[in-house]
Amino acid sequence: MPQGTPERTPDDGLTTRQRRNRPLLIIHTGDGKGKSTAAFGLALRGWNQGWSSAVFQFVKSAKWRIGEQTALEQLDQIHRDTGAGGPMEWHKMGSGWSWSRKGGSAEDHAAAAAEGWQEIKRRIAAETHQLYVLDEFSYPINWGWVDLDDVVDTLTNRTGQQHVIITGRRMPAALIEQADLVTEMTKIKHPFDNGQKGQRGIEW
Amino acid sequence: MPQGTPERTPDDGLTTRQRRNRPLLIIHTGDGKGKSTAAFGLALRGWNQGWSSAVFQFVKSAKWRIGEQTALEQLDQIHRDTGAGGPMEWHKMGSGWSWSRKGGSAEDHAAAAAEGWQEIKRRIAAETHQLYVLDEFSYPINWGWVDLDDVVDTLTNRTGQQHVIITGRRMPAALIEQADLVTEMTKIKHPFDNGQKGQRGIEW
Repeated sequence: MPQGTPERTPDDGLTTRQRRNRPLLIIHTGDGKGKSTAAFGLALRGWNQGWSSAVFQFVKSAKWRIGEQTALEQLDQIHRDTGAGGPMEWHKMGSGWSWSRKGGSAEDHAAAAAEGWQEIKRRIAAETHQLYVLDEFSYPINWGWVDLDDVVDTLTNRTGQQHVIITGRRMPAALIEQADLVTEMTKIKHPFDNGQKGQRGIEW
Repeated sequence: MPQGTPERTPDDGLTTRQRRNRPLLIIHTGDGKGKSTAAFGLALRGWNQGWSSAVFQFVKSAKWRIGEQTALEQLDQIHRDTGAGGPMEWHKMGSGWSWSRKGGSAEDHAAAAAEGWQEIKRRIAAETHQLYVLDEFSYPINWGWVDLDDVVDTLTNRTGQQHVIITGRRMPAALIEQADLVTEMTKIKHPFDNGQKGQRGIEW
């Protein structure tokens, strides 16, 4: 290299610190277990950083409560009581979104999914959270309930420090393309293969 | 099927309920992210069931504390204060196991790993916990610090209701063979590929 020529730096207009702390779009996909569980595990890290985190469960039948919800809500309570960690919200579509007054929307899954996405868009525009978990979000996109181009556009142009984790099988290629970190969970062996049923503490 | 012939039931001497709640050996392997994070996420479910859980981090350099440790220890504190959830222990090799008095053992990684495994064996024999997370346990096995046959034998013959999750790359085939549930985490895309460094809240 000729003397005096500066080393090449990325042409992205960012400082080194900004580049290091670039907000990530993370995808957990594949047919194996652990996609959602690892996303909720990441929420533990965010909580410990004092981030504001929100989980949005796009599951039709999520009227029941999984263990992670109870545990993460306890961490939110600790934050409120002591100031440790960060705030943590948990919203699920199955029983009607908690912020929604339309009690009947849970009956119309397409409308409920679209409503969930509109709320997430508003929050991303307002930079409400540092971490968003969009759990099983590939399904409403694949079923045409949420517009893929709108999702890609919103995530591509989001401002500030907002990490987004999306889980689900058959993730649209346009989201994989846009993502910074993509992990595929592959089933090698599962107890269901031997006729064993799901059990408490493992499946929920 | 001739009338009067009973339906075939598994010849394992278990009741249906016992078969349903069979303790699992779970493995998270592969080169992708999410192996440990999903294991710690499962610990949230166990906590919510009131199980006694223990994490053993077999990481040479785990002198630092990851976010999950702080968050899970907070849940242990909630259990102690209010009785909600279950007890949760977190042990790591990097700073010397917390139960060990040998301050110097952290210098000798092989001895420290063997010591960790001996303690886990004692606890499994005593049925101390309902959930064990043996984090990055494939490494000390592959390095010959912990005997594979001993691990397989101990896990195969464990009694009671003890779930065991083992994480790490290059999981020995004998453990995969023995496991009930195996998920491989595969890297599709990672920010390190573009020269980005690890960041707070995502990597730890």
